Amino acid sequence: MSELRFDPIRNRWVIVAPERRLRPHELIRPRFLATPDPSRCPFEPGRESLTPPEILRIPRPDGQGWQVRVVPNKFPALRVEGTIERRGYGPYDSISGVGAHEVIVEHPDHDRELADMETWEVEAIFQAWRTRLLDLRNDTRLRYILLFKNHGLEAGASIAHPHSQLIATPIIPEFVTQELAACRRHFRRKERCLFCDVIRMELEHGERIALESPRYVALAPWASSFPFETWILPRTHMHDFAAAPEPELRALASIVVDVARRLRALLDDPPFNMVLHTAPSPHPRPGHPDDWTTLEYDFHWHLEIVPRISRIAGFEWGSGFTINPTPPEEAARFLRDADPDGGTDA
Amino acid sequence: MSELRFDPIRNRWVIVAPERRLRPHELIRPRFLATPDPSRCPFEPGRESLTPPEILRIPRPDGQGWQVRVVPNKFPALRVEGTIERRGYGPYDSISGVGAHEVIVEHPDHDRELADMETWEVEAIFQAWRTRLLDLRNDTRLRYILLFKNHGLEAGASIAHPHSQLIATPIIPEFVTQELAACRRHFRRKERCLFCDVIRMELEHGERIALESPRYVALAPWASSFPFETWILPRTHMHDFAAAPEPELRALASIVVDVARRLRALLDDPPFNMVLHTAPSPHPRPGHPDDWTTLEYDFHWHLEIVPRISRIAGFEWGSGFTINPTPPEEAARFLRDADPDGGTDA
Repeated sequence: MSELRFDPIRNRWVIVAPERRLRPHELIRPRFLATPDPSRCPFEPGRESLTPPEILRIPRPDGQGWQVRVVPNKFPALRVEGTIERRGYGPYDSISGVGAHEVIVEHPDHDRELADMETWEVEAIFQAWRTRLLDLRNDTRLRYILLFKNHGLEAGASIAHPHSQLIATPIIPEFVTQELAACRRHFRRKERCLFCDVIRMELEHGERIALESPRYVALAPWASSFPFETWILPRTHMHDFAAAPEPELRALASIVVDVARRLRALLDDPPFNMVLHTAPSPHPRPGHPDDWTTLEYDFHWHLEIVPRISRIAGFEWGSGFTINPTPPEEAARFLRDADPDGGTDA
Repeated sequence: MSELRFDPIRNRWVIVAPERRLRPHELIRPRFLATPDPSRCPFEPGRESLTPPEILRIPRPDGQGWQVRVVPNKFPALRVEGTIERRGYGPYDSISGVGAHEVIVEHPDHDRELADMETWEVEAIFQAWRTRLLDLRNDTRLRYILLFKNHGLEAGASIAHPHSQLIATPIIPEFVTQELAACRRHFRRKERCLFCDVIRMELEHGERIALESPRYVALAPWASSFPFETWILPRTHMHDFAAAPEPELRALASIVVDVARRLRALLDDPPFNMVLHTAPSPHPRPGHPDDWTTLEYDFHWHLEIVPRISRIAGFEWGSGFTINPTPPEEAARFLRDADPDGGTDA
């Protein structure tokens, strides 16, 4: 069984998940994606019996099979079964590895990348994300539900078929807590949303704006950790992705596809991560009745897309900050000027 | 000129270093190390004129040339020249990119990996580290000096010749501040060093101990972020690596080589990062007279070695915690049982 462990020195949680892999020879780094060949891929239509039983299915508009499927991860980092036990162990802390780990199979076609998809196809993925978010929020053991996509080997994808993942944890992750705390401090002092302030300033200046649509803005953040890091934010204040109505999801799909196509054209199909940042589940911790349960004012959901073309090295690992060789003002300009249908300019 | 930028939402600094690389086609990920061929390597003996002027040279014991050289990085993330300007920009913060970025050429031989080196050769590297630490601490603009080594492309190395790096920053990096703060809290409450407590407990239990020597212990930390992450700590309390006397450095070199050889045997020459965690420079911030200047009691220097055989993916990027498939108890047992002269057991 996996376990969440807390490091009192680094103030950091880790999931120790021995069920996923174990011995040194299995750790020797893979140089290629598993299942580049659709004939052996467990996510192909017709091979549904190779995955654990389906949690959610979004049918194709023509009624012929599925468009999106959600299944439990076959090698989960955290498991839904069991009760949460919290214990101390000398100076250390541990929580039993209860949570959820699901796979969203995004499309029936093995080779259809995000940048190749139609807007309605990406909208169906976001609908699946929202449905799973709303369902898992009924489980009061789960404090945060993280939705993310890894594209390409260097971004951590181990299967080529287009898919995203959901991991729900019994604690709110550190990075999320920091964002929530920064937003809450700002709101309590100013009665304004920090993200709304950032969006307003960026739209006034323009130099870090990559794309705009009536409902969304895509920008290169001031302190971009990596080259071409891009945030996609709703222009009007909204704390929770799960509360976004249908037209919002269609408009989101549209700008996401546009960003993905421009990144592919500029950076030769880069590996990337796409991560949803949204409000945590509204279950207060025992003894903390107002603990992140009243975020409708001070948080602002958004998507982060991070191409993984520079590497995390010793400096980043020792300091917690990154060295970004591309100023966000340059990245935004390249994205604005890119041809979404173009090849790389290399 | 590069710039340190602070993100108020994520509470995180980034170095934006446009001098290092710029346009999209230059960012497309390299798949091979630069200069695998010694005939084009700038770090070869006889080709010293290809680097900026030498800062430090440790001669070979036989007097024939150098054993270790320290030179400025030709494409520095931060520059020594200039004054530090701190400014605000709407909700953002910025500090001019003043600091230091040096390269420690660790050995005259192009192909000599850490695991191949003699103890005295590694001791010479650590002597160079210490000399540079002590020298740069005279510069009151520099608050922290980070020494680290990247081995292998996946660990961020861009040059094959054995080398390590030094980056000195005008702020104390976030990860360092967190460790210092955790240690100080512990000491103020208990009048004991947190690391000393951890070492004592680990030696009593033994299951996470990888190697022991009279002066050092190598262990797999309780909340290891990555498989086979290994910390090397002095057994007796010492806050500052730069204060370590000669015999300490020789003993350190000995256990580092042993760990490096075992990791190579177990994991087929894995890419890795090695990072020194030591006390910051003893210059208080204006207005904070006791700011990390009295660490002799509560900090404990150590080396962290992190094989990079698992990848940072969307979950890690969104949450700040990692999924580690190898429990540290297993990793320590494999390291204890490994043959330092062996091949991989794959």
